[in-house]
Amino acid sequence: MTQGKKIAAAVVGATGYAGAELVRILWDHPQVELKAVTSRQYAGQAIAQVFPAFQGVVPLVCEEFNAQSIGERADVVFLALPHKLPMAIAPQLEGTNTRIVDLSADFRFNDQAAYEAVYQPHTSPELMKKSVYGLCELYRKEIAQAFIIGNPGCYPTCSLLPLAPFIQQGVISTRGIVIDAKSGASGAGRGLSLTTHYCELTEGFSAYKVAAHRHCPEMEEILSREAGRDVKITFAPHLVPMSRGMLATSYSMLEKDLDTPAALEILREFYKDAEFVKICPDNALPRTSHVRGTNYVHIAARVDEHANRLILVSVIDNLVKGAAGQAVQNMNIMFGLAEGAGLNAAPYPV
Amino acid sequence: MTQGKKIAAAVVGATGYAGAELVRILWDHPQVELKAVTSRQYAGQAIAQVFPAFQGVVPLVCEEFNAQSIGERADVVFLALPHKLPMAIAPQLEGTNTRIVDLSADFRFNDQAAYEAVYQPHTSPELMKKSVYGLCELYRKEIAQAFIIGNPGCYPTCSLLPLAPFIQQGVISTRGIVIDAKSGASGAGRGLSLTTHYCELTEGFSAYKVAAHRHCPEMEEILSREAGRDVKITFAPHLVPMSRGMLATSYSMLEKDLDTPAALEILREFYKDAEFVKICPDNALPRTSHVRGTNYVHIAARVDEHANRLILVSVIDNLVKGAAGQAVQNMNIMFGLAEGAGLNAAPYPV
Amino acid sequence: MTQGKKIAAAVVGATGYAGAELVRILWDHPQVELKAVTSRQYAGQAIAQVFPAFQGVVPLVCEEFNAQSIGERADVVFLALPHKLPMAIAPQLEGTNTRIVDLSADFRFNDQAAYEAVYQPHTSPELMKKSVYGLCELYRKEIAQAFIIGNPGCYPTCSLLPLAPFIQQGVISTRGIVIDAKSGASGAGRGLSLTTHYCELTEGFSAYKVAAHRHCPEMEEILSREAGRDVKITFAPHLVPMSRGMLATSYSMLEKDLDTPAALEILREFYKDAEFVKICPDNALPRTSHVRGTNYVHIAARVDEHANRLILVSVIDNLVKGAAGQAVQNMNIMFGLAEGAGLNAAPYPV
Amino acid sequence: MTQGKKIAAAVVGATGYAGAELVRILWDHPQVELKAVTSRQYAGQAIAQVFPAFQGVVPLVCEEFNAQSIGERADVVFLALPHKLPMAIAPQLEGTNTRIVDLSADFRFNDQAAYEAVYQPHTSPELMKKSVYGLCELYRKEIAQAFIIGNPGCYPTCSLLPLAPFIQQGVISTRGIVIDAKSGASGAGRGLSLTTHYCELTEGFSAYKVAAHRHCPEMEEILSREAGRDVKITFAPHLVPMSRGMLATSYSMLEKDLDTPAALEILREFYKDAEFVKICPDNALPRTSHVRGTNYVHIAARVDEHANRLILVSVIDNLVKGAAGQAVQNMNIMFGLAEGAGLNAAPYPV
Repeated sequence: MTQGKKIAAAVVGATGYAGAELVRILWDHPQVELKAVTSRQYAGQAIAQVFPAFQGVVPLVCEEFNAQSIGERADVVFLALPHKLPMAIAPQLEGTNTRIVDLSADFRFNDQAAYEAVYQPHTSPELMKKSVYGLCELYRKEIAQAFIIGNPGCYPTCSLLPLAPFIQQGVISTRGIVIDAKSGASGAGRGLSLTTHYCELTEGFSAYKVAAHRHCPEMEEILSREAGRDVKITFAPHLVPMSRGMLATSYSMLEKDLDTPAALEILREFYKDAEFVKICPDNALPRTSHVRGTNYVHIAARVDEHANRLILVSVIDNLVKGAAGQAVQNMNIMFGLAEGAGLNAAPYPV
Repeated sequence: MTQGKKIAAAVVGATGYAGAELVRILWDHPQVELKAVTSRQYAGQAIAQVFPAFQGVVPLVCEEFNAQSIGERADVVFLALPHKLPMAIAPQLEGTNTRIVDLSADFRFNDQAAYEAVYQPHTSPELMKKSVYGLCELYRKEIAQAFIIGNPGCYPTCSLLPLAPFIQQGVISTRGIVIDAKSGASGAGRGLSLTTHYCELTEGFSAYKVAAHRHCPEMEEILSREAGRDVKITFAPHLVPMSRGMLATSYSMLEKDLDTPAALEILREFYKDAEFVKICPDNALPRTSHVRGTNYVHIAARVDEHANRLILVSVIDNLVKGAAGQAVQNMNIMFGLAEGAGLNAAPYPV
Repeated sequence: MTQGKKIAAAVVGATGYAGAELVRILWDHPQVELKAVTSRQYAGQAIAQVFPAFQGVVPLVCEEFNAQSIGERADVVFLALPHKLPMAIAPQLEGTNTRIVDLSADFRFNDQAAYEAVYQPHTSPELMKKSVYGLCELYRKEIAQAFIIGNPGCYPTCSLLPLAPFIQQGVISTRGIVIDAKSGASGAGRGLSLTTHYCELTEGFSAYKVAAHRHCPEMEEILSREAGRDVKITFAPHLVPMSRGMLATSYSMLEKDLDTPAALEILREFYKDAEFVKICPDNALPRTSHVRGTNYVHIAARVDEHANRLILVSVIDNLVKGAAGQAVQNMNIMFGLAEGAGLNAAPYPV
Repeated sequence: MTQGKKIAAAVVGATGYAGAELVRILWDHPQVELKAVTSRQYAGQAIAQVFPAFQGVVPLVCEEFNAQSIGERADVVFLALPHKLPMAIAPQLEGTNTRIVDLSADFRFNDQAAYEAVYQPHTSPELMKKSVYGLCELYRKEIAQAFIIGNPGCYPTCSLLPLAPFIQQGVISTRGIVIDAKSGASGAGRGLSLTTHYCELTEGFSAYKVAAHRHCPEMEEILSREAGRDVKITFAPHLVPMSRGMLATSYSMLEKDLDTPAALEILREFYKDAEFVKICPDNALPRTSHVRGTNYVHIAARVDEHANRLILVSVIDNLVKGAAGQAVQNMNIMFGLAEGAGLNAAPYPV
């Protein structure tokens, strides 16, 4: 990267929530020039027509995706598409000069069978093997060298960051981990459904895909890697009547003697250089609104001594640290920029 | 009860949310006459001034509590007060002709030490011993004979009903039960706090009192009773940006071989005569809005075979089945009325 | 009506929000038997599958609409369909023994040209002429005799009730009335749209169809009738991030000298026999939650002396008094029942 | 201002919503150094303890206000206090080197009698006379020279911007203007009240202070100034179940022949150099979420030809353009910075 020259970026699938959030972040990124946004559904329309918040601010017009054209114009391409499309598109971009951050599941797995068990046959298995799992705080080195990043799912991001230090250090058992996670409705995207119809969701908290969500094997792959042996978890996601925000509560059996202050200390030490991870004070617990619109993760820990369990509570904004923000964080690492570039605006107090 | 004569009822503490909900239910109850509502804060004011929804419908005026007067006028007194007050008031009512349904924690425990460990010294220990835990579906017989009912907490009601059949029948382990529960803000009452200030709660899902909530020992006492041996659970409550509704997700280790249909069948069989308990169809999961404003409980079960766990999901309206509705259901049982009297209006579709 | 015999009712279009609300109300109505519910989209499915709140409570199955069959089985048919369908269906029912309450716009107008100017050509003009506008508090006598009722729109119900006494009595000018109305999302129905997608609506209050809403001519027809001369209004509706509830604020020029207490007195006197209309105390203003789930209307008045204007504020639940509730109120009047039968459950305090 | 030297700023009353929002904006402002934040209630506590969103980002500690100390350290002081306090504090700061942006009502009026009629006796009448009304788009020149700015109320900002061009140009009558405005709950501040208690506000849209709100005379003073003659308006504010956002709908009698495109053209021309004012396309209407968290104003116009009225609809974020954002915009103008400095982050798409 020549000093001073801006990174040329493109967002493929810019009119979903994650795509539009990428547009917001990249538009303001001091070292990025957003060259192109694509949308099949809205090709030819101004992005500000699709998202009126951008009115008079972001003058870009949605174009049809064309691998050749995008590849030539962009140093980095963000794929914000439903899974299955990226595995077809990524190989087309491989020949060009660009690098890729894929926000779908297609390049999150290294284990092809695990992917295929819950998604579909993978048509770019070689690329899959080269891909790096973009959980920035854990895999910075690999990310820096990667051609293609599999940007983590929102649930895995929120759940794995608190668990990682404890599973790595053998503080908790690899058996019996329960993750009870709760997400705002933007995680379900901009596509219409009765589930996210206003009248059905307001006052309507619910569980869904209990023990059947595709993020479960994604988490198990990473936890097993960190533990050095096979980890099985139980995972139940829930839908919260709110727009942005995700909270994960995990329950693990303690293998070592530990109290709450010691658990917090492990987190503080592990994340002392991670600018987006904040460990809550002893007397505080995270709230999704505290990270709304930001790339931050807030984590708390409690030891339930009477049942010998470690309880971890963490929050993220599912569209930022859980999607677009982490994608840009990955780009920052890939291109040798400051990790927080374009991502560290002061948070909204309320 | 002479046929045709209405039961005279009084609500002590009628201007909190549970108290006002009692007023709503009792006002429409075909076999009840609501004789008195009391409020320290609003004594002398019309209840319709405090809750304008009652305007032109409920003409009652709040009075100061007077044990003598209330006891003489009421066949049944509902105490909707913060804990500690009922243990002082109940003995005053004992001499009169009335029976009591207490919505606080004061008469929920039979184990005095367990109560005192998390609340305060109990000043009516004899009455405590006579009290019956008012979880209607489990303790109908005892309730029918009781002088004083300890109406269950909302979290215990929502969590215990799904677990009871499985713990009774030894299907799940008494060790390692995790209950992750989520409540709407009305559970925190009408008292003002920053936590339930609109701007702080909207978009602000959070955990609170993790592994430190007083409903935990209440649940352990009942689960141990049903299991016939000591049960320890891990309990973490969460606050949802909504007004009414509660959902509990519990995770238990299976002791017997079981799949999802079999788990559902156990629930259906156990609750086949319980008019307020509905077991969801195999392909459905509960949503709090489905029981909003009603006394119903919706329950679903899933077996997570890859981790050998039973997951139970249940919803109630915390102010109805979790408080006022169950209190009236208890009264119905105590006075030999149809269990659903005054409680079985058709639910709102949305 | 033979004493004791129940009225047989049918709901055509039972799986929209107004239709489902009719099911709720009619199911509990002490003098009604709900014989049939129809749905094109969900024919063959249990209504409780479409609205899980009805699970274990309402066992009806949706059927395809058949005029002959419905006409034979029902004393009254509620049409809860999009406009244009009822004008085709109603004539088919005319030959049978049933009476009709139509919740669409098709039979609200007596002036065919006014209807056709904002909807489409009317194919049942004779029936239209026979139809009665079902604003219960104003047209009780006509309603009692009607074969077919045009159930008022939610905005007209909410706006006309406060204005009626003043326009009738010449207290306000027929010129320059402004109605600024606000509705919850359930008014837009169960059909999916980006406007009522949760993430787009929450925190997203907006105006829509400003000076272009079809309820405007409906209101002008009634106001002109009551004034005895032509009334033109300006009407702007707004969408509120909430599910149920509607509030209308109207601004009129005073023609007579009037202060706030006198304005309130006019309302109290006018509605002294209307059980569902409540005039707020002098120091109170209505809130939509106070009438949520009920058939009540709360009205307040303020005279802005420095600008010589009367300001009226009123609230209803758009699905009850603004749709299903008023439809049942109309049925009660048509069949000589108590006007509040099935509609006067005590309101929820919160 | 020496080129390159940062402006030293202080926020007095930093722990209310407007104060905290000032902290957020000033913390990120490229040409500002935030030197001090004060709070009576939280003196000695970290601002990140009061607003956990600031955790690990804003390390400031709240101090007690001391005029001498603040005046010495700050080039500009923002007063985010309840009215009455600023009129006592501002004169203490006058001797020091600092300039003032006051967010209360104390320095919004030039007409002392008008202020005193709705607030209280003004104890700094000379300062009041020197103060400039900080509606940036109208009074840039005066603002640039001002020692003290009276930062406009949120309702006036939202209502006056759309009306100004029309009233200035005599397009609308100075008689009969109606402003119906709607605000999210953050406008009521962080102080606890039943009105903004979550359970009372959700699903509870209401009107308040109808024809009795203090922002009414503030608007009349400015409108009269712009019109060159006395303007009287009718103003009714409403409270929306949402956190941030405000929408104003105004209704005026047309004095000149005008259609919708012409009205929009007047707005576009008038605001062609105003970077924060966006005029909606002909087929679009504003939504509060489109400006959430930003300093933008979105405006639409419609001519209701059948009633000869101009309807203007505008949205702002009440805490940004309605308070802290406009305060910083005023500071930018006062210190000769780019008007949008620190305020032009790309908006959130949802």
